Amino acid sequence: MQQLTSTQNPRVKEVVHLRQSRKRRQLGKFLIDGRRETDRAARCGFPLLEVFFAPDLASEETSAWMQRFYEEYRDRVAFFETSRSIFEKMAYGERDDGVLATARRVEVRLDEMLDALPQGRPHLIGVIEGVEKPGNVGAILRSADGAGVDALIVADPKTDLFNPNTIRASLGTIFSTPVCVASSEETLEELRHRGVKIYAAIVDGAELYTCADFTHSCAIVLGSEAWGLSDAFRVPSVQPIFLPMRGIADSLNVSTTAAILFYEASRQRMAETPPLV
Amino acid sequence: MQQLTSTQNPRVKEVVHLRQSRKRRQLGKFLIDGRRETDRAARCGFPLLEVFFAPDLASEETSAWMQRFYEEYRDRVAFFETSRSIFEKMAYGERDDGVLATARRVEVRLDEMLDALPQGRPHLIGVIEGVEKPGNVGAILRSADGAGVDALIVADPKTDLFNPNTIRASLGTIFSTPVCVASSEETLEELRHRGVKIYAAIVDGAELYTCADFTHSCAIVLGSEAWGLSDAFRVPSVQPIFLPMRGIADSLNVSTTAAILFYEASRQRMAETPPLV
Repeated sequence: MQQLTSTQNPRVKEVVHLRQSRKRRQLGKFLIDGRRETDRAARCGFPLLEVFFAPDLASEETSAWMQRFYEEYRDRVAFFETSRSIFEKMAYGERDDGVLATARRVEVRLDEMLDALPQGRPHLIGVIEGVEKPGNVGAILRSADGAGVDALIVADPKTDLFNPNTIRASLGTIFSTPVCVASSEETLEELRHRGVKIYAAIVDGAELYTCADFTHSCAIVLGSEAWGLSDAFRVPSVQPIFLPMRGIADSLNVSTTAAILFYEASRQRMAETPPLV
Repeated sequence: MQQLTSTQNPRVKEVVHLRQSRKRRQLGKFLIDGRRETDRAARCGFPLLEVFFAPDLASEETSAWMQRFYEEYRDRVAFFETSRSIFEKMAYGERDDGVLATARRVEVRLDEMLDALPQGRPHLIGVIEGVEKPGNVGAILRSADGAGVDALIVADPKTDLFNPNTIRASLGTIFSTPVCVASSEETLEELRHRGVKIYAAIVDGAELYTCADFTHSCAIVLGSEAWGLSDAFRVPSVQPIFLPMRGIADSLNVSTTAAILFYEASRQRMAETPPLV
């Protein structure tokens, strides 16, 4: 493993730059903080470019993992060993387990992503529109992974999908769930064109979410916490649904709403097939 | 409204101290950041002690609210007007809408809290054990409020229930949902004694959560993200349940798990009664 010994090394400087959205787009790369996330990216076939490793910050378990990981990927990925101080400069206050990677941004077109979904069974598609907080996008990816959502469309995002906080909050599930960025108009048109039933969570929606039929191919659309859904999704072909709010608050966090709806869809689909247990 | 003009004022210093858990316990007080949270505390009958208001930081809407709030509560609560700089010192980097309050810590005993629940219908009780992050506790309170959970038991907490971040993440729902702190042993004993069926979310649980019957009085127990559930809840009288994990991750965030389970219980209970819409 090559040694990096100076904070002036261009690779170190580039990692620091990649904390900025503008630089990530410009260089077509992004950062992955942490061993679990790096491992998941690799296992899911995401094109890793560089892996940085600081032995001084790594637990014994992480060092053992790195040994195996290095042997497996050394022919495809550039590995660098760094001191604690250089690593901390690159990690920028993030959780430091001594592992950090860069990967190539892979941007899939919406129609390509939908074409590639497995055929022969109903799809469950998540759509999040205008969500601002990287942590919420990551949390929604984590729930989507758990509930078996087939794909997530990030419509008109207010944050870079490849923000390091999104990747961390997703625990690396961003690498397993097909995900793409599209405009709200394009999203609506593609879903309608493919005959996907579209539900949107709206505080004053018409239908109780448990009365919605999620057993056919359908999309569940969630708006931003601050602005709600745009007019693009307030059209007759989109069925507004709501969650009961029995207390004093008038809404749930967007990632919580997503999780409840994704798991309700999953529940309805289980009921259609022989039980799991 | 009395003017506070110096950062050396003992009230200003006390607010700064109340950001520390130790001081909150010692003084028997806690902080409420923000207008919505302060309003909810008052409406829910929580004993506010002081309200601090910085007109320079407040929107027009907040100033109008403050005028009404002051008229309504001035006989019971001490109100203080401060400059922007003094307020920012007290707010300590928190979201500044120019409103901050202190309130008396109200600590209810578990048996008292359960005795006070409305009779004549099955109860739904949330239990969170050993949760470390104030933000998670707050998020769970917000979901509990939405789903109509009757009470939340915070068992063996690793964080102060009255942490300002808990209150903020709860959006003030901490004031509407009955909540108390107890040991895990006491919690288990009280719930068993009252004939409450106890379910615990465990990654390798035996029963799928959708197969659990939440229509009778029951408790849903959640463990910490880092440590899981303690042995206290790994006993035959507690039914371990699990959520399907269909992707690469092996668990959901604890507040997400709580929301899905609380809303599943709520769904089952709706199905037992005439539909809402």
